Amino acid sequence: MAEVHAIRRERLRGRCAAAGVAAALVTQPANVRYLTGCAPAGAALLVGPGPEDVLVHLRTPPDHRGRAEFSDDLRSLVLRSADGDAAVAAAGLAREHAAASLAVEEHHLTVVRHRAIGSVAGGLPLTDLGGAVEQLRLVKDEQEIAALRIAAEIADQALGELLESILVGRTERHLALELERRLVDHGADGPAFPTSVGTGPHSGTPRHAPTDRRVEEGDFLTVRLGACYRGYRCEIGRTFVIGSAPAAWQIDLYELVFDAQRAGRETLAPGVACRDVDRATRQPLTAAGHTEGLAPWSGHGVGLEIDEDPQLSPAAMGKLDACVPVTVEPGVHLPGRGGVRIDDTLVVRPVADGGPELLTITTKELLAL
Amino acid sequence: MAEVHAIRRERLRGRCAAAGVAAALVTQPANVRYLTGCAPAGAALLVGPGPEDVLVHLRTPPDHRGRAEFSDDLRSLVLRSADGDAAVAAAGLAREHAAASLAVEEHHLTVVRHRAIGSVAGGLPLTDLGGAVEQLRLVKDEQEIAALRIAAEIADQALGELLESILVGRTERHLALELERRLVDHGADGPAFPTSVGTGPHSGTPRHAPTDRRVEEGDFLTVRLGACYRGYRCEIGRTFVIGSAPAAWQIDLYELVFDAQRAGRETLAPGVACRDVDRATRQPLTAAGHTEGLAPWSGHGVGLEIDEDPQLSPAAMGKLDACVPVTVEPGVHLPGRGGVRIDDTLVVRPVADGGPELLTITTKELLAL
Repeated sequence: MAEVHAIRRERLRGRCAAAGVAAALVTQPANVRYLTGCAPAGAALLVGPGPEDVLVHLRTPPDHRGRAEFSDDLRSLVLRSADGDAAVAAAGLAREHAAASLAVEEHHLTVVRHRAIGSVAGGLPLTDLGGAVEQLRLVKDEQEIAALRIAAEIADQALGELLESILVGRTERHLALELERRLVDHGADGPAFPTSVGTGPHSGTPRHAPTDRRVEEGDFLTVRLGACYRGYRCEIGRTFVIGSAPAAWQIDLYELVFDAQRAGRETLAPGVACRDVDRATRQPLTAAGHTEGLAPWSGHGVGLEIDEDPQLSPAAMGKLDACVPVTVEPGVHLPGRGGVRIDDTLVVRPVADGGPELLTITTKELLAL
Repeated sequence: MAEVHAIRRERLRGRCAAAGVAAALVTQPANVRYLTGCAPAGAALLVGPGPEDVLVHLRTPPDHRGRAEFSDDLRSLVLRSADGDAAVAAAGLAREHAAASLAVEEHHLTVVRHRAIGSVAGGLPLTDLGGAVEQLRLVKDEQEIAALRIAAEIADQALGELLESILVGRTERHLALELERRLVDHGADGPAFPTSVGTGPHSGTPRHAPTDRRVEEGDFLTVRLGACYRGYRCEIGRTFVIGSAPAAWQIDLYELVFDAQRAGRETLAPGVACRDVDRATRQPLTAAGHTEGLAPWSGHGVGLEIDEDPQLSPAAMGKLDACVPVTVEPGVHLPGRGGVRIDDTLVVRPVADGGPELLTITTKELLAL
């Protein structure tokens, strides 16, 4: 593992050199983890100006997730003061090493921290590293995809077990907690995001927070969950109907969302514009008159964060690449009645490799439970 | 409830007026919630320059916690663009209303967002609101303390039920999940922070992340949990011994930490310096030779955030006030053997009112389970 991280940091150095940046200060936690394999709370990574990279972190408290797993050419520097800011200490190091300039993550640092870094940096000019590390994170290597595959498997298992249990009469909160327990049972670090369970009129809402409403006969039941495995987060969403026979409107709505989701999935290929995936997913829904209340995105990238680039939305720039994992997650919610959401995590692959790889394999048939 | 929030905003206006600030832009989520009663993800609150305050928020996705409960003189403005930044839109409003200046939360805004606000604000000078809202939040009103009291009661109940169940052979992860389920069972919005369960050599570690280690006979078992109730977060930590009879070293270590925690609790009073509470709590531990590995704080404020001002640490400035809820949470961890932590949430009260009010009432006797 350690070598992987050293190679990633080398790539960042390459980008920095090309942009005339002498040293980079990385503070965004997922970026720190990507480049070092761990992300103790409040840690800061200094890449350059010398040959050795330095991870500065606080002595206590240890982060809930980040364990120091690295054992390579990365130097670990423990900050002695509990009140200290690792980023400020790292900026001091950059100055000591006579860096010509220091690029920082302006989209992550607060104004106050940026000012503190600037004052320690002295004459050292601060520039913006921008999303350089996020850019590196876009295309996943096979080790990362393997972690996502396991995360998806865990989510499928947790969901499958829930479907075998009795649902009527249980509250959204309890179903969500049960799913999260099962994720951990099957080896997840934890849930990838707060599990969403929506019943009846709550079903189909984009990110519904579970309430005390109980599952009733005739309800739509929408579930959205994901596992975090070795830091990698996946997502699955399904809608079921409770009782022996779905109503006609439920079947129609389900088929509509199912078709939209399939259209989106089938669009996924290297070189396709992100906004075209969104359009393909959205179009069947708007054509059927569902213009109000649609989520502003049809999907998004996943990885060390559950919502990362690329965005699949009408205003998205850029194109898909091979080995980019994304969600496709259309939904329709009819106020007062409920609705349907169907959500998969897939990896973009060229047609020659069999096209998009579906990670979340739970059936998308409309199950009556 | 709505009136409470209007009064709080009025107090903020008073502070701003005194500091020559025409309008304030609040973005820190707990601050937004304190001033409006809700905090949809990404919301921004503009207080002034006109008589009407405006909460700008995104249309979707709705926040997992924040429900729009307000119904007073606060105007709610929904941002139409999904990619938009509510803070930027609010800054545009401030300019339209010809504010003379706009104070923003530089400790919360990233450099990138601050720049976007500055560019929309045009000629409007941006100043720093600093921790003005956090200052207002320090001293709690009786409604807030009532919410904390219920949160503590829920945590006590969840912990009490766990103690009645069989513990040997269960993993830290499962015990933590079980506690979180019980918190929700008893009416919590959710856990106040990730529940920590440490067994054997993990016991006594400040913020141990649960692992797959199973509870064994003879272990110390340290549990730290808290409930979030109507947004207010409390904290309780206890250490137990597993089996019929604690070892002599376990009894000695427990008594030491117990005495330290009592010393800290007994110091709590209006007008006492925060660092003096830390010193009183820390002194018995260092006197017994435990200097390495002590947490850099002995406690902290709680409220809408689980870790807020005041800090009870050696470098802390300031004094306690009446109606300030804090934790007192000393601990000792002996590498390889384990340790003890005892953690309560209390409200500072004058002696005339009976002294500090203990919210977390689970016994602190050393229980052998």
